Amino acid sequence: MNYRIIFYIIGWVLNMEAAFMLLPIITGILYQESAIWAFVKSGALCLILGLSLTLKKPKRQYFYVKEGYVTVALSWIFLSVMGALPFLFSGSIAHPVDALFETVSGFTTTGASILPAVEDLPKCVLMWRSFTHWIGGMGVLVFLLSLLKLAGGSHMNLMKAESPGPSVSKLLPKVHSTAKILYGIYIAITIAEFVVLLVSGMSVFDALTTSFGTAGTGGFGIKNDSMASYSPLIQIEVTLFMILFGVNFNFYFLLLLRKWKQAFSNEEVFWYFLIILAAILMIGWDIRGIYSSPAIALRESAFQVGSIITTTGFATADFNQWPEISRTILVLLMFVGACAGSTGGGIKVSRFIILIKAAGKELKQYLHPRLVKQIRMDGKSIEHEVVRNINVFLIIYIMIFASSMLILAGGGTDLITNFTAVAATFNNIGPGLELVGPSANFAFFSVPSKLVLIFDMLAGRLEIFPLVLLFARDTWRKF
Amino acid sequence: MNYRIIFYIIGWVLNMEAAFMLLPIITGILYQESAIWAFVKSGALCLILGLSLTLKKPKRQYFYVKEGYVTVALSWIFLSVMGALPFLFSGSIAHPVDALFETVSGFTTTGASILPAVEDLPKCVLMWRSFTHWIGGMGVLVFLLSLLKLAGGSHMNLMKAESPGPSVSKLLPKVHSTAKILYGIYIAITIAEFVVLLVSGMSVFDALTTSFGTAGTGGFGIKNDSMASYSPLIQIEVTLFMILFGVNFNFYFLLLLRKWKQAFSNEEVFWYFLIILAAILMIGWDIRGIYSSPAIALRESAFQVGSIITTTGFATADFNQWPEISRTILVLLMFVGACAGSTGGGIKVSRFIILIKAAGKELKQYLHPRLVKQIRMDGKSIEHEVVRNINVFLIIYIMIFASSMLILAGGGTDLITNFTAVAATFNNIGPGLELVGPSANFAFFSVPSKLVLIFDMLAGRLEIFPLVLLFARDTWRKF
Repeated sequence: MNYRIIFYIIGWVLNMEAAFMLLPIITGILYQESAIWAFVKSGALCLILGLSLTLKKPKRQYFYVKEGYVTVALSWIFLSVMGALPFLFSGSIAHPVDALFETVSGFTTTGASILPAVEDLPKCVLMWRSFTHWIGGMGVLVFLLSLLKLAGGSHMNLMKAESPGPSVSKLLPKVHSTAKILYGIYIAITIAEFVVLLVSGMSVFDALTTSFGTAGTGGFGIKNDSMASYSPLIQIEVTLFMILFGVNFNFYFLLLLRKWKQAFSNEEVFWYFLIILAAILMIGWDIRGIYSSPAIALRESAFQVGSIITTTGFATADFNQWPEISRTILVLLMFVGACAGSTGGGIKVSRFIILIKAAGKELKQYLHPRLVKQIRMDGKSIEHEVVRNINVFLIIYIMIFASSMLILAGGGTDLITNFTAVAATFNNIGPGLELVGPSANFAFFSVPSKLVLIFDMLAGRLEIFPLVLLFARDTWRKF
Repeated sequence: MNYRIIFYIIGWVLNMEAAFMLLPIITGILYQESAIWAFVKSGALCLILGLSLTLKKPKRQYFYVKEGYVTVALSWIFLSVMGALPFLFSGSIAHPVDALFETVSGFTTTGASILPAVEDLPKCVLMWRSFTHWIGGMGVLVFLLSLLKLAGGSHMNLMKAESPGPSVSKLLPKVHSTAKILYGIYIAITIAEFVVLLVSGMSVFDALTTSFGTAGTGGFGIKNDSMASYSPLIQIEVTLFMILFGVNFNFYFLLLLRKWKQAFSNEEVFWYFLIILAAILMIGWDIRGIYSSPAIALRESAFQVGSIITTTGFATADFNQWPEISRTILVLLMFVGACAGSTGGGIKVSRFIILIKAAGKELKQYLHPRLVKQIRMDGKSIEHEVVRNINVFLIIYIMIFASSMLILAGGGTDLITNFTAVAATFNNIGPGLELVGPSANFAFFSVPSKLVLIFDMLAGRLEIFPLVLLFARDTWRKF
């Protein structure tokens, strides 16, 4: 294990975090809030720790898969712990575990909150809260990779461990350049949303925080009723941008390269939009009686579907009160998740496509044992390794899910609350059903339950393996 | 597709069903009930249909995997439809779908009932209801195979399709002999339970029906309160026998051969008992406050754990009223299920063992990419094919589960009812939580919901593939 390079990278992550805290500090200055001192202090701490770790560049810069996983897992943990400090220092959140919960929820783009009301918080704290979504959305190490030059294959091993989806596609031969393009697209769409919202009548502060929350598919709102009090126009715009941020970013890259045919034959993107369309229509039909016109029902349906499948978690309606078909569809969508290579969470559409194709192939093989068939996606054949990887992902996913539910049950909360609380955090969505519905919050959970949910959020965002391997004895054993 | 042999076998299944109906007829004669005419009529219909299909033995007796799956699926459907007739003819159940539900629930050893009260039913109807569990438990085609001689590899293809578990282990080189031994063990343990219950003070009728329900891991009771009104001694005995019938029958076979070492090193049996023990202790602790003494709490815990993990479904307590930890553990056990090669349902302990081992191996491979490792169970290495098969099983399982929940939600029942109703039928358990809790029944579901649950029960008992392949276009296409 190359500890020096691991801590060197963590050091850079902390340096960057200090830089990120400039945004809430600027916000605090503009709004003349005393809470900025919390950020000044936290930023200074990040910088001291970060600089001390990055003073000397390690000679051996190579590191392997193992180091990749460990670095990613530890980076996120450090990032979250340091990111929680402003909440504590400013007194916005009293309990350290609650502060950590809120921060992890932010960086992992979950959007589950322990705060019953957010409107009283200082603007700079709200800005930081929403900004963590944006930082975590595309991945902090991907950002680092676009700036930092490391040796050889190290980049790929980091990117693999942090990027969502069953396999990483390098847009360009160099990971460094791939990371730059990804962040370029990310920033461009974020700015587009910011401008659109601004033009539609949002204030600069609201437009910026909402854009951060949408871009990272996070879901922290700056109002107690999330997005319900905004105009229908703004709600429709946010719906569209949520769905856009759930699209595989390769799609946008291919569009940039004018490879139209290749872009539009992307199976994952096709199914992603098809599922969204089907869900919007089914739920729209199911809730038609609740709203005064079909258009409103469809708008409400579209917002919630877009919010849940992309795992954003904004809400314009309390879908916990909707009829059972709608509730069931939304719960199922929680697991489907967005596209791989997007900022969204969940199991990912492409994993389901590959699993279903593998199942179909296997069934065919039962009927014709001598048939040899390859699974193909986007015209390319899928390697056995990828299918195996997804299967392992699924079984560990199920095990973590079941264990989490069991521990939460120990706190006495009801089965459906626990089930959807785990689903909402593990898939990085935010709100669930019943006690954790869109109009509720996660404050009432016991400390052990909150720690489990913190683990689930991190495991969900990092797609399980880095976090699980962090606890594997084999990772730390010398070979 | 060799249709002639398929219908020849279905014919034999119906002949046997006619013979099976002798038991309720005898019961009816002893209790002088007029309902016996329903069985005489149904039996005659079975025999007429069966004999007409078995008059001529087909020349080409070979059939392949495809025919195996189709035969098994169709046999079970015919068996269920004909088995539902006595309920209708006797007027015990008014609606045909309800009668089919009850019969499928019986043969698939689910034990979910649409009857609000069973104590008023004629004894012969109750006998038939419990007897269907026993018939379905070990498999009607396995029984047929122990009697009928077919050509070559045909036996194996039938047995494969009907036996529960990821892979069929032939106890003896000849399938014919394997089937005989399985049924021999099955009958022996059933008789043992019958005698034990009789000695403990049960009436002949009660002991016989309870033994049938336990042996098939079915769960239909003959009392409205299931097993709650029996003495503690009887409850403990039933607990033990439920657990015994959930053990892989290979274990008993090895005991018979005095291969002690091989028997006791069976990993699935080991984990099965370990899970049971852990669950009993955890639930016993969780419910200690509800019962007057720890011994009673443990007894109640053991009964419910044994009943749920073996997917029997008898109840001595309304566990729907238990605290959340207990409820959650029981829901998780619903999915674990019993051992492969037992009469129990669920996903099966061995599937989980193999999946977890595969996941562990894969994780190790991430850390040491050059490592080549084989998964082993009971000292033998597991073929890739088996692991793939289990993965496919799991993904189709999840898909059927999600679709079923969605259709049930259309009926307006709540999420947790739907979730546990599907879990309880698909895993062939019987009772679930909330509206389908141990003190409730399935009568209130709409007809479409009931049809979905009927499908789930059959798909669960036949372990998905035969029923899914029945609906695959490829199955019916000529090659």
